[in-house]
Amino acid sequence: MQRELLSRKAACNAHGQDSSYFLGWQEYENDPYDPISNPKGMIQMGLAENQLCFDLIETWLEKHPQAGGFKRDDGKRIFKELALFQDYHGLPAFKNALAKYMAEVRGNGVRFDPSKLVLTAGATSANEILMFCLAEPGEAFLVPTPYYPGFDRDLKWRTGVEIVPVLCSSSNGFRITRAALDAACRRAQERRLRVKGVLVTNPSNPLGTALACGEIDALLDFVSSRDDLHLVSDEIYAGAAPEGFVSVAEVAAASASTAGRVHIVCSLSKDLGLPGFRVGAIYSEDEGVVSAATKMSSFGLVSSQTQYLLAALLGDGEFTGRYIAENQRRLRERRRRLVQGLEAMGIGCLEGGAGLFCWVDMRHLLRSTTFEAEMELWKKIVYQVRLNISPGSSCHCDEPGWFRICFANTSEETLEIALDRLKIFIDSYQSSDTKGHNTSREFIKWVSHFSSSEFKSER
Amino acid sequence: MQRELLSRKAACNAHGQDSSYFLGWQEYENDPYDPISNPKGMIQMGLAENQLCFDLIETWLEKHPQAGGFKRDDGKRIFKELALFQDYHGLPAFKNALAKYMAEVRGNGVRFDPSKLVLTAGATSANEILMFCLAEPGEAFLVPTPYYPGFDRDLKWRTGVEIVPVLCSSSNGFRITRAALDAACRRAQERRLRVKGVLVTNPSNPLGTALACGEIDALLDFVSSRDDLHLVSDEIYAGAAPEGFVSVAEVAAASASTAGRVHIVCSLSKDLGLPGFRVGAIYSEDEGVVSAATKMSSFGLVSSQTQYLLAALLGDGEFTGRYIAENQRRLRERRRRLVQGLEAMGIGCLEGGAGLFCWVDMRHLLRSTTFEAEMELWKKIVYQVRLNISPGSSCHCDEPGWFRICFANTSEETLEIALDRLKIFIDSYQSSDTKGHNTSREFIKWVSHFSSSEFKSER
Repeated sequence: MQRELLSRKAACNAHGQDSSYFLGWQEYENDPYDPISNPKGMIQMGLAENQLCFDLIETWLEKHPQAGGFKRDDGKRIFKELALFQDYHGLPAFKNALAKYMAEVRGNGVRFDPSKLVLTAGATSANEILMFCLAEPGEAFLVPTPYYPGFDRDLKWRTGVEIVPVLCSSSNGFRITRAALDAACRRAQERRLRVKGVLVTNPSNPLGTALACGEIDALLDFVSSRDDLHLVSDEIYAGAAPEGFVSVAEVAAASASTAGRVHIVCSLSKDLGLPGFRVGAIYSEDEGVVSAATKMSSFGLVSSQTQYLLAALLGDGEFTGRYIAENQRRLRERRRRLVQGLEAMGIGCLEGGAGLFCWVDMRHLLRSTTFEAEMELWKKIVYQVRLNISPGSSCHCDEPGWFRICFANTSEETLEIALDRLKIFIDSYQSSDTKGHNTSREFIKWVSHFSSSEFKSER
Repeated sequence: MQRELLSRKAACNAHGQDSSYFLGWQEYENDPYDPISNPKGMIQMGLAENQLCFDLIETWLEKHPQAGGFKRDDGKRIFKELALFQDYHGLPAFKNALAKYMAEVRGNGVRFDPSKLVLTAGATSANEILMFCLAEPGEAFLVPTPYYPGFDRDLKWRTGVEIVPVLCSSSNGFRITRAALDAACRRAQERRLRVKGVLVTNPSNPLGTALACGEIDALLDFVSSRDDLHLVSDEIYAGAAPEGFVSVAEVAAASASTAGRVHIVCSLSKDLGLPGFRVGAIYSEDEGVVSAATKMSSFGLVSSQTQYLLAALLGDGEFTGRYIAENQRRLRERRRRLVQGLEAMGIGCLEGGAGLFCWVDMRHLLRSTTFEAEMELWKKIVYQVRLNISPGSSCHCDEPGWFRICFANTSEETLEIALDRLKIFIDSYQSSDTKGHNTSREFIKWVSHFSSSEFKSER
């Protein structure tokens, strides 16, 4: 009955929010860790948020109060102008500054023309808009696994586009190969789906790796094998990439055979830690895509108030240069600490050095090589250790036993506590393997230590 | 070839932007009127923008500088908290204030529960989301004519939903009747379209009228005639309604037979003149709609920076009370001046007293009762008189000779100049009707007067 009244989209759960990825978040929200008031609470390591450099932005804001208010540098009021500004081409000052920043974050190896940039209310919307522009309902995009769980919502839900996974495996460090792309194409054919392109994340979420040049070449080679294929590179973690990062935009600029069929998605949510401001963008060399996407951006424009603030922030070259370098340094340091802490427990991570997370190998901790065993371990980590991490299965990983752990959304002290908790759990878990299932009792005993106020320093 | 590479949505022009409604805007943008620098330029009367009360908001901002910045009243920084806030349920303080404001603007005849409110990046997105939630591609919504030209984009383009017009005519002041709704249903049947509901604008854009109680009753009666029909009431002009305005929400609250099938769309773009801030909302009593729409709002969330500012503004009851009254007073005064000026030229308006525009009857000025004649007159007004007004045909009006003229997006002085220009044109146009087509030369002679700087006072 309800199904008849509402659309199938509204009534179904194709938005993917029932996955363990989001369930872990809910668990966190019900009982969030706080060093003073809730030291036994859940620590959120399932959220790819960058909280490491707010002090830099706050210092800048102190020095530039007019950017947050509604006055120009010369004191002239700008409220009315901003309140009325709803041109879907965006504030020119902001687009210019964003294009410059996008180049800078990519080591200035490629330039971006502001007129080929479409502003969107976050990358969520940018990816959906590209699907609306590039594929019909019932056509497919290939997406390498493991992939961001939100893509099931962003790419498929309202567009009717299908995702065909490109199965990547640990045997080659989850690298994308031409053979894997071709195999995905064959599976699409079996499902009678016309493939319209590939969508990758670079750096990869959840792998925490940047695409190697060989992978980009394989992707462009694949796309140029037919004249109706596209490559979408979601580069929202470009600011969290290791030195030597190569944007797909850079390689594509030199490839005539795929001209106009490579589209880049950007965002300020991860690099600058501003998800609340809803700033994303599509960059495309195809005029038709830019034109249609610009019109579609009407469904999610960026607030002019926010554009004005960010035009000033990103327009300050002295600030962006310092921010990019310092942000990378802090992320590197934090990542190093997580990797080191896990190593001390005998847990390895995929080598990558990108993103706000590590792709963590816990295969040796599974009772069996199954996704049931992965969920069993995940539930223990969530419900007993009180750490929200993301199981690989929620990212459509093909192999059980991998987990994504985020490291940039908490303080260093909280990370240390999370590592301590995990270590005690792992020790107990492994010993219970031989001695029997006494994990829970052990863990409860341990967690009761954390009721004091010894972590005051954190906030 | 291009059609193959991109989707049909991207390649087609179903977004409706090629209509005369938007063409007039382009013409304005190429040659915008300015009293000093471009006194012969185009005057924009095709834009339903409210510029009459910015002084009230600016004064409030002067007194509350922390709302625009990133500090609380107590001086505590709030930048980080806002930067990270991306919960699609919205800032509680903002939703509470918005719900309160929505009730106040409707004379407190109905209350709104913040938990049934979904924030969207403008009403554009709110309307599209409702279509995604309520209908399948290929199903239809009935929309009374004349209607906002943007609906062809907002309701149809990406959703695949069809619009079936409910033909309203001047014979009863373009009122919606049960007979007209039933006739539209029959036409939908002929097109083999399943009807899923009716979407109205209240107050109406472009009519400038509020729905009469009889019309709301007819609509609810129609919707309750089947158990799978919905009523969407787009009330983005509620703040520009005459005294005694009745929201569909108010009547629906008392109607058990349509419970959960009436959905209200709101926005701050027109009432507060803030289109650049992208704030819209859906209000629904149906849990399934609220839940699905909330998830869909991920594709266009409202910037947290903007939510924070508006929570403070709308949370100030002293301000909202004064603003609502003063805004209505100024709109009334401005509307009165336009109606009076047109009357002096022998041009009538539909009685309404709502919205930021009048629905103007120029049927007597057409060379013939055809849409070709309407376009001929419109082109003269755009290209010779240099006024951008919207022809009824762009609003899917069923009768040639009606035009929408906006009055709240310019200064009073500019309105007077527009009226002066129009009067000279009408006099000349009507006399040329008997003496021959000498309009253009007369008009060019006249417009050359406006090269002096006599309008300095305007800016």
